[in-house]
Amino acid sequence: MAVGESKFPEIPLINGIRIGFTKAGIKKVNRKDVVLFEVCEGASVAGVFTMNAFCAAPVTLCREHLSRASARYLLINTGNANAGTGAKGMQNAQKCCDAVANIAGVSASQVLPFSTGVIGEPLPVDKLLSALPDAFDSLDTGTWLDAGEGIMTTDTRPKGAFRVCEFEGQAFNLAGISKGAGMIRPNMATMLGFVATDIAIDETLLHALLKQVTDKSFNRITIDSDTSTNDSCILIATGKAGNKKLTDLDSEFAKYFVDQLTSIMQELAHAIVKDGEGATKFVSIEVAGAEAKEDATKVAFEIAHSPLVKTALFASDPNWGRILAVVGRVGLQTLDVSRVAIYINDVEIVKEGSRSDSYTEELGQLAMSPENINIRIDLGLGDAFDTVWTTDLSHDYVTINAEYRT
Amino acid sequence: MAVGESKFPEIPLINGIRIGFTKAGIKKVNRKDVVLFEVCEGASVAGVFTMNAFCAAPVTLCREHLSRASARYLLINTGNANAGTGAKGMQNAQKCCDAVANIAGVSASQVLPFSTGVIGEPLPVDKLLSALPDAFDSLDTGTWLDAGEGIMTTDTRPKGAFRVCEFEGQAFNLAGISKGAGMIRPNMATMLGFVATDIAIDETLLHALLKQVTDKSFNRITIDSDTSTNDSCILIATGKAGNKKLTDLDSEFAKYFVDQLTSIMQELAHAIVKDGEGATKFVSIEVAGAEAKEDATKVAFEIAHSPLVKTALFASDPNWGRILAVVGRVGLQTLDVSRVAIYINDVEIVKEGSRSDSYTEELGQLAMSPENINIRIDLGLGDAFDTVWTTDLSHDYVTINAEYRT
Repeated sequence: MAVGESKFPEIPLINGIRIGFTKAGIKKVNRKDVVLFEVCEGASVAGVFTMNAFCAAPVTLCREHLSRASARYLLINTGNANAGTGAKGMQNAQKCCDAVANIAGVSASQVLPFSTGVIGEPLPVDKLLSALPDAFDSLDTGTWLDAGEGIMTTDTRPKGAFRVCEFEGQAFNLAGISKGAGMIRPNMATMLGFVATDIAIDETLLHALLKQVTDKSFNRITIDSDTSTNDSCILIATGKAGNKKLTDLDSEFAKYFVDQLTSIMQELAHAIVKDGEGATKFVSIEVAGAEAKEDATKVAFEIAHSPLVKTALFASDPNWGRILAVVGRVGLQTLDVSRVAIYINDVEIVKEGSRSDSYTEELGQLAMSPENINIRIDLGLGDAFDTVWTTDLSHDYVTINAEYRT
Repeated sequence: MAVGESKFPEIPLINGIRIGFTKAGIKKVNRKDVVLFEVCEGASVAGVFTMNAFCAAPVTLCREHLSRASARYLLINTGNANAGTGAKGMQNAQKCCDAVANIAGVSASQVLPFSTGVIGEPLPVDKLLSALPDAFDSLDTGTWLDAGEGIMTTDTRPKGAFRVCEFEGQAFNLAGISKGAGMIRPNMATMLGFVATDIAIDETLLHALLKQVTDKSFNRITIDSDTSTNDSCILIATGKAGNKKLTDLDSEFAKYFVDQLTSIMQELAHAIVKDGEGATKFVSIEVAGAEAKEDATKVAFEIAHSPLVKTALFASDPNWGRILAVVGRVGLQTLDVSRVAIYINDVEIVKEGSRSDSYTEELGQLAMSPENINIRIDLGLGDAFDTVWTTDLSHDYVTINAEYRT
């Protein structure tokens, strides 16, 4: 199940990047499960990763390699997360990097490894290594669609987005893919996002930008509150667009680039939510009128995680008392319940802390029936606000996660 | 669905308490939905209530009345929570207290009101008031079973417990009922618990005791992480047992009483979890080896709230990577993943942060198959520990909560 129709767009290749893929039979036979990105020399590459202390071996290695050298290859496998695998897991991730480096003639620290799939099982490293030559061979033909398909786990569809941009005569491109449908509550990053552009930009600046934009996109989605061990988001800038290298964010061009980057990363983040495990609704939760942004964020996430709110969304039931109960239990010190207003798709449900006089059950039912739901809360305390995107909790979520390993 | 068999025990009446009940047709016709407790003069009564800022009108009134006068009557209705109902809700709760006071010839502040059911709908106060004479008439015949049945919502069975106690020749009794199956993550109290004893005890001390024991029982259970607007737990001591009035906790008798009280309140709390919406498992989560108790509590609750852990429990699937991922994402500053050990029903699953050498999938399957599951985590950091009780997330949970209002 997934919310809305979704066709993978025709994404042009980004100048300076080649994509390879193959079928290594890691968990299932005859499916694309290995993806290889080749990045040109001189590109800037930035990454953000899960804050989960039990982060996977490839995440640890990826962080290390990014800090040591200019990345030239990204190797991604699905079907196995290589997480909770201890020292052996680190050795396996290292072996994969060594093998790619060997074939390509680069140093192992120029290879970034990524894994996604079941946690706690040994990575079938031999299968991966024997599939590498195939992946290299396909570098001339691989597309963003191949990459989008090759990183799926319980996703029902590949997710991709692109922007062809122009600002005062300077053309550039942005393209990316993402994956993830369960264990989705990214904290500093997501599992997995790969975004590329051809602009030239300083690598330190690129990293700062990625962090900033991640906080407005991947770090504002949640499906089931569980932060993964493998979340990673990589942003590559190949420098082939011909622009004067960006080194600060003061120019109008830089601002335009940030807007475009935010837009594509939000689209990729939303695509994950819409394909959330068992999802039937795409829900944005806007909390305004908070004293501090952290308060707005907290209220929004707590609503997004409430199983009672999520099952009411699944039922298209305007059981707004459940939303109100969450606002009340979050623990905001200065909350004044008599100032709280709640709207669902612009229908005023709660005014001054209790049911609005204009509210009727019919209006509520109507507001809850579309696939796209906007829950808006005004705390009436201040000017801070935040938005979080999530989905409902359906029977299919339970089925998928009760049967995932079988 | 519910975990295990459960027969409501034959609970003797507590000397000094009478129980009335009736069918007021508040939400459904022909079911017990109003319960009345009459408490003798001179009894001590203590209460703890939800910390939800959107607490229900009866909770607000109950707190106020308890602080002002000696309680003589408890009036409880199911079918409507009288929460999110603003000023009108307060008036309705007050009307109920006034009516009871009128009939009984006591002051309105000696009446404690309780409501449970759907949030946000006006309390049908006329139905309640017309049913009151019937409730008073039944005070001679009502039993704990009538009370247990009269406060149910989505509960599949009434929950009661009792202890006949004796300590160095001093006999006393403890009895109680509880309800709740969804929106269960009590914070300072639960929805609803009523416990009574015939010992004599100072009211201030009784209140301190209730808070202390609630933290080891009702405040350590969670079904779906949602703290209700109406949680209330009341402890009544009628003083009819003939003991010298307890005024401090230094005596051996006092310690014995606290042990017995903890035991009965844990039994009532566990009964709520076992009857959790859609529950097929009763799960205790013990976290040891923490630096501070708050850390242990936090890790235990986060595991108990993880939809991925809960669906794996439903499937009896030893997908322990999901437990490990929660431990990693909680955000303990000093967590050293290489010290973490995880056991399920005494099978060592994780040792030093990754899969134990002795672990096999068969052992894991065996450990996960019973109805009663014990998840034990050793963080290896210190001596603090805590235990939380919860249940799984099943299709029935989704069905019940997607259909609750229909």
